[in-house]
Amino acid sequence: MKFKAEIDVMPMEALLDPQGKAVTLAMSTIGLSEIQGVRIGRHIRLFVEADSMENATQKVDQACKQMLANQIMESYEFSIEVA
Amino acid sequence: MKFKAEIDVMPMEALLDPQGKAVTLAMSTIGLSEIQGVRIGRHIRLFVEADSMENATQKVDQACKQMLANQIMESYEFSIEVA
Repeated sequence: MKFKAEIDVMPMEALLDPQGKAVTLAMSTIGLSEIQGVRIGRHIRLFVEADSMENATQKVDQACKQMLANQIMESYEFSIEVA
Repeated sequence: MKFKAEIDVMPMEALLDPQGKAVTLAMSTIGLSEIQGVRIGRHIRLFVEADSMENATQKVDQACKQMLANQIMESYEFSIEVA
C-alpha cells in the first residue's frame, strides 16, 4: 500500500528564529502589525510504500530522525494517510 | 482575540523541486528506498490579533499573498484556530 505523509519540521521553541523574526518585523511594512510571533520551518510531503499504517509510520519516523530533522535544533510532527 | 495560523507553502506540482529530488535519492542511502516523491516547502506558524475568525483569515491570506508565498512558483494553504 502507498501512504502519504505530511511532515512539519520547526525550530525548537527555546531557540531564536531569525528568519521568523525578520518576517514578523516586515509585516508592519505591509500594514499587518497584528501579525506576531512568526516562526518558519519546513513542510515536507512524501509517499511511502509499506504493508501497514504502522510500518509506514515507523519508516517516516526513521526518515525524520536520520535525515529530515536536526533533532538538536528542530522538532517534527507528521500525519499519514492512505494515498 | 488572538488566533494561531499554521501555513504550508509548497512548490507547485507542475514545477521541479530539486531539493526534494535530492532528498528522495538520498533516502536509499539510509535504507529507505520505499520513500518516494519527496517535496519540500515551508511551514509557517504565526499569531494574529483580530476581532473575528473571518477577519483573522483575511489577514493571514493577505500575509501569504504579499509576503509568505511566491504565487508564481508556490501554492499555500492554512488553518486557523483560536490561540
